[in-house]
Formats: sequence, C-alpha cells, structure tokens
Amino acid sequence: MEFLEKKYLFTPGPVAVAPKVLLTMAQPVIHHRLPEFSNILKEIRENLKYLFQTEKEVYFFASSGTGAMEAAIVNLFSPEDHVIVVSAGKFGERWVELAKSFGLNPIIIELPWGKAVKPENVEEFIKKNPQTKGILIQACETSTGVKHPIKEIAEITKNKELVLVVDAISALGVYELPMDAWGIDVVIAGSQKALSLPPGLSFIAFSEKAYEFTKKAKLPKYYFSLQKEKKAYQKDTTAFTPAVSLLIGLREMLKRIRELTLEKLFEHYKILSFACRKAVEALGLEIFPEVPSESLTVVKAPEGLKTGELLTFLRTKLGIVFAGGQDQLKGKIIRITHMGDQSLMDLTVAISALELGLNLFGYKIELGKGVKLVQKVLYEYYKKSLF
Amino acid sequence: MEFLEKKYLFTPGPVAVAPKVLLTMAQPVIHHRLPEFSNILKEIRENLKYLFQTEKEVYFFASSGTGAMEAAIVNLFSPEDHVIVVSAGKFGERWVELAKSFGLNPIIIELPWGKAVKPENVEEFIKKNPQTKGILIQACETSTGVKHPIKEIAEITKNKELVLVVDAISALGVYELPMDAWGIDVVIAGSQKALSLPPGLSFIAFSEKAYEFTKKAKLPKYYFSLQKEKKAYQKDTTAFTPAVSLLIGLREMLKRIRELTLEKLFEHYKILSFACRKAVEALGLEIFPEVPSESLTVVKAPEGLKTGELLTFLRTKLGIVFAGGQDQLKGKIIRITHMGDQSLMDLTVAISALELGLNLFGYKIELGKGVKLVQKVLYEYYKKSLF
Repeated sequence: MEFLEKKYLFTPGPVAVAPKVLLTMAQPVIHHRLPEFSNILKEIRENLKYLFQTEKEVYFFASSGTGAMEAAIVNLFSPEDHVIVVSAGKFGERWVELAKSFGLNPIIIELPWGKAVKPENVEEFIKKNPQTKGILIQACETSTGVKHPIKEIAEITKNKELVLVVDAISALGVYELPMDAWGIDVVIAGSQKALSLPPGLSFIAFSEKAYEFTKKAKLPKYYFSLQKEKKAYQKDTTAFTPAVSLLIGLREMLKRIRELTLEKLFEHYKILSFACRKAVEALGLEIFPEVPSESLTVVKAPEGLKTGELLTFLRTKLGIVFAGGQDQLKGKIIRITHMGDQSLMDLTVAISALELGLNLFGYKIELGKGVKLVQKVLYEYYKKSLF
Repeated sequence: MEFLEKKYLFTPGPVAVAPKVLLTMAQPVIHHRLPEFSNILKEIRENLKYLFQTEKEVYFFASSGTGAMEAAIVNLFSPEDHVIVVSAGKFGERWVELAKSFGLNPIIIELPWGKAVKPENVEEFIKKNPQTKGILIQACETSTGVKHPIKEIAEITKNKELVLVVDAISALGVYELPMDAWGIDVVIAGSQKALSLPPGLSFIAFSEKAYEFTKKAKLPKYYFSLQKEKKAYQKDTTAFTPAVSLLIGLREMLKRIRELTLEKLFEHYKILSFACRKAVEALGLEIFPEVPSESLTVVKAPEGLKTGELLTFLRTKLGIVFAGGQDQLKGKIIRITHMGDQSLMDLTVAISALELGLNLFGYKIELGKGVKLVQKVLYEYYKKSLF
C-alpha cells in the first residue's frame, strides 16, 4: 500500500481528466432551458465544428459512444439495407452487431485483429455489392490500436451513392481527420477519449449526402432522432435533457483545444506515440497493430507472460493502470493510451512501470532501456523549444 | 505549451495535495462551535498524538509554521533569556531573528550551510553558557536538506534545566522523531510538508518540563497563547476561529497516516530518498547536505550551470517544479522534495526531468542513467511485495 495511492490512468478510455476540468464540472448544476445554457450551447456547437473540421452541425447525446453509432444506423438506413462493415477488432464487431440488431444486411470485410483494411479491398467489396448503402468502419480500432486508411476510403466513397460512416471515437482530436476536406459522411466521437472528459457524451456529424440519406431512412428512432435534435438546435436547445455537467466540462475542453490549436494537439500525440513506440521496440517487444494509431500504443505480450497478473500487479501495487486485450486478445496485448490528461513526462512513468512489471514477471530486460529512448525523443523536442 | 499543462510539484513545501483530500476540504464549511466540529476536533487531537508520538496534547494554529515557532518563543521564555540557536541555514537564521525580535539573547552555534551540528558542540555551548534556558534547532533544515542529530541532543538536554525546542516542520511524519521516547521538549510542525496538506496550519506540543517553563514565561502573548488554547481544549473547542477546511483535510490525512502506520510512512520516504540519492550520484552529481534528511534531496548544482534558468525551463516547459536555493545558496543547489502526494513512480519523472534539464543546459550526462538507478531500487522493493 502506498502513501496516498496516487493513480495513473493509461487506459484507452476512460482517460485521465484534468483537475481544472473536473472542478469546472463540479460547479452547481444549471438548468438547461435557460438563456444562460443556450449561450453555452452555441459556444459548444461552434467549437465542435472546429474539432470536427466541418461546416455542418455536430450533434451530441447523453450516451456512450455506442449511442452515436446507433444514431448513425437508425438515422441513415432502412430495414434490409446492405452495409459493408470493416471488422478487424471488437469495435468492428460492434458495427456488425448493431447492423444486425436493426435488421440490416451486413456484408463483412473480416480481417485478423490487428490488421488495417486496404482501400482496394473496400473498393472491390463495393463493386461486388452495388446495392450497398453504407460503409461502417473505425478510424482507430481501439481494441487493437490499428488505424484504418480513412482518407483513401473516402476518396473511393465520395462520389458514390453510399455513405462512409466513421467511428472516430478514439481518433478524433488525436490525429488529422478533417471531415469536410476528406469527404467523410458521418463522423462519430465520444467524450472519454481524446476530449479528455469523463464518459457520458457521444457526438455525431452528417455530411450533405448523409442528410439526404436521413430523409429516406425508415428505421424507427426516438431518443437518437437527428430530426428531433435538428429542430431543437434551431431553438438553441436540445431535444432531451442534456448531460449538463459534462457539457460544462466539454465547453472547457473545446476552449482549451481551440486555444492550443488542433495542429499542436496532434503534435502532442505524435510525440507521445512516437516516443512510446521507440521505447517498446528498444525493449525488444513488438508493436501489435499493423498500422499503429497515435491514440494508443498496443504492445504484443511476450510468449508465456502472465499478462493479466502483471496488469493487476501494476494497478494495485504501483498505481499504474494499463489495459489488457479483449476477447480473443485477452492476455496477448498491453494497451497504453496517450489520450487524456497526460504530460509528455508521464510517458516516463508508463515505460518505467512496464519495464519493472516485465522484469518482475520474468521477462528480463535491461531496466531503463526504454525510458532512455523516451528521454531522447523528449530531449530533441524540448531542445527546439529552448532555442 | 503542453496539452493540459499538467504539473508536478516537487518543492519542499508547499507540496502536492491528494485530490481526495482536496475534495474533502471542498465540502461546505461547517461552524466551529457546533458539537459536530467538537467531535472532529477530538479525533484530530487523538491522531495528532499518534503522529507526534506523545501522550501530551498537540495544539494547532491557523498560521504558517513560523507561527508555531513564535508560539514556542512567547510561551517558553521571558525577555533577556539566553537561548542557544543552531544556525546552519535559512530556518536556523529564522530562530535567531525570532529570538531577537522578542528580546531574547541568542547564543549562536553558527555552521556553514549544509553542515549538521555535532551533539558535543551543543554540549560544549551549554557548559559555557549555564544560564541558557533553551536550545532552538531544526530537525531538518529545509534550506539545505540537512538532518540534525535530535536524538543525541535530547540525550544531553533531557536532565538539564533547559528546553529543547525542535522545529520539525519538514521532518515530523517523514522519519522517526518520537517526542516522548527521545525526551524532546517542544516539537513544531506545519501542514504543508509531510502532512501533505495546503499551507495554513502549524502545530506545537510541549513536554512536562516545557509546561513548567510556560508558567514562568513573561513574554507578552495573545493569539499564540498556550494557556488560552489549553482552556479551550478543556471545552472541546479552540480559542480563536480555527481554519475549518484545513482541519477537515487534516482529519482525513491523519486518518490515512494512522491506517497506513508511521512505520510504513517512514519506509515510503526512505525508499524515495534512497532511490533519489542513488540516481543523483549515478549522474556524477553531489548531494549537498552533510547528513541528508529523507524529506528532500538537495543536489549541488554543477559549476557554471545556469540553475535559475534551468529551473524556470523545467517549470514552464515540462511542468516540473523543483526548488532552487535561498539566499547564499541561490543558484547553487536544486531541491527535490519527497513529501506530499507522490507515488514511488513519480520519482522517475523527477529524475528524468533533471536529466533532460541538465543536458539541455549544457551539463552532458547519459540520459536514463539516473532513472535506471531509481528503477533498480523500486525493482527490489516491489519484488518483496510480489513474493
């Protein structure tokens, strides 16, 4: 038991939330139908457009990210519609489950977990299935840390009569994903990832083409109805009671991101993920995903390592919380997020803990070897800011 | 500018306060004359005895640590009294200033900053000055990181007609300093050090012998009057309005310390200070104090290093806050505290930042060399808890 049981949350959602933001959210609750809240709402809507890099409205729900995924399905499609789903991890599978639950016909591009889809693969599936109404995909597959080639896929779908629906829950705000410029039709996000907020809010934006689809969509909807939210936005309010405190936190985070600029934010994640990968490689470990996302670093657990026990030990004794693998990856990977309230220096802690844990659980590596690599990357980075 | 500007406070007071404790203090203020508060007071008094390792009452003031130092002076002495002061740093000098301000005659054992007093030195001074009424000393001289030999000095003063007054502001709760067992007459503490609270509370406890002294003390007093506080304690209250929110935080911290046990708490600081020193030595740097305290590690700045600029850089760019030297030590030392809300893993951050800063400011050392030493110490420590 340590003195004050300080914790480091390195899980890919929820992520650590900055104390300043937590305190903002701890202010007395305000009523959502008052002019005061309408003004907050206007500010949030404006800044969400900046984050999504879109001219369109961004809608939000009091729900987990899955809520916005469901909102995409029910607002875009009709029963029996054919959709192509890229399934290369737990969240790809979630698209499949969602599609099935609402009576769609999912055509699955199934890939081994950890692989990124090839754009030509998507193109081929579209050709073979001309009746396809939409492509459902993740920008970053959180369960494997893989980054799918959204820009290239959008090039293919842009001028076709189908919508590209991107679950960007662990990608938006981490790396370049400009909705309008790339021609993505639907972008979905969540509060508990790059927005560095607690879970409880989901986001969704629709392109012009996607709006046309929503007019023809026949699936039943109520809570996740885009039309209801659209009408409410016209009166500067929301259709249902919004998650007021989370939105107060969101306003703070969006303000912070806008002040910092997306460019700087992306640089932050670039350095963290680059330094982390260098460190992991220095320890003789493999990066699991084929094309790694800057959102998190997923490390392949060495053969024979008791990964579950190691993670429990790090969590309970060192206060360091990493995530393991889900389903078929259980025990096989270690996931270290770069999202949330982390300074660049925190990576020293993450890698130091990883080195200690691996050694304690029998995978002998030279202590400090990975940390040194992190320091080298940070040294080069800080040198620039010094001169 | 980093994303959320996360900060690490490694200064030897104030120190980082645990969020859980901050939240406790953020609860609505309660009135200090109600039974509810009397009960809190009883709990605090009981647990303060545990912390001070005394059967006597421990009093507190809404003041900085200096307030309790003044309380010692005005409650123990009369004008013209002779006191021996061990002055080997900024806080030794504070004793001298306090003694002079209240018309005492300080006899100064002056030592170069960074040195620890020798017990025989104190004994000699007492012999040469038989009129001496008290010894004023620091347990840990925060400005230099030195630890004075309190146990040995108490052996000398125990059976003499003078009081040993120990400013233990940065020592109590960090390492063994049992007031009753060692026969220390007055122990002084502050909230913003090992108690890991914000500044604003000071503490003082008197031995039986010290109580006898207070009866004859003629210096004028009001706010810091022991008699007033004693009377108030009999009615389960305080003489003046207490710092309610800080006391609520204190209750929480004392509870935590009691649950953890002093033994474990001392072990925590032992590991942190030991690992830190090992790391500093590995970097080819010198530890400044002759006898280092476990409260903080004071590093001698290498010749020619622009220490002030380095510390500003670490603070503004990396979010790492170390303390420099005061007065004659300005620019010559770097002080890294081990007190406050720190996990053992935080030391990785401190040493990593020190290494980066030194390299960036021209003192070339191998990156990671110190961190590795920290990891080795932690490895041995955690290995024990694993098997």
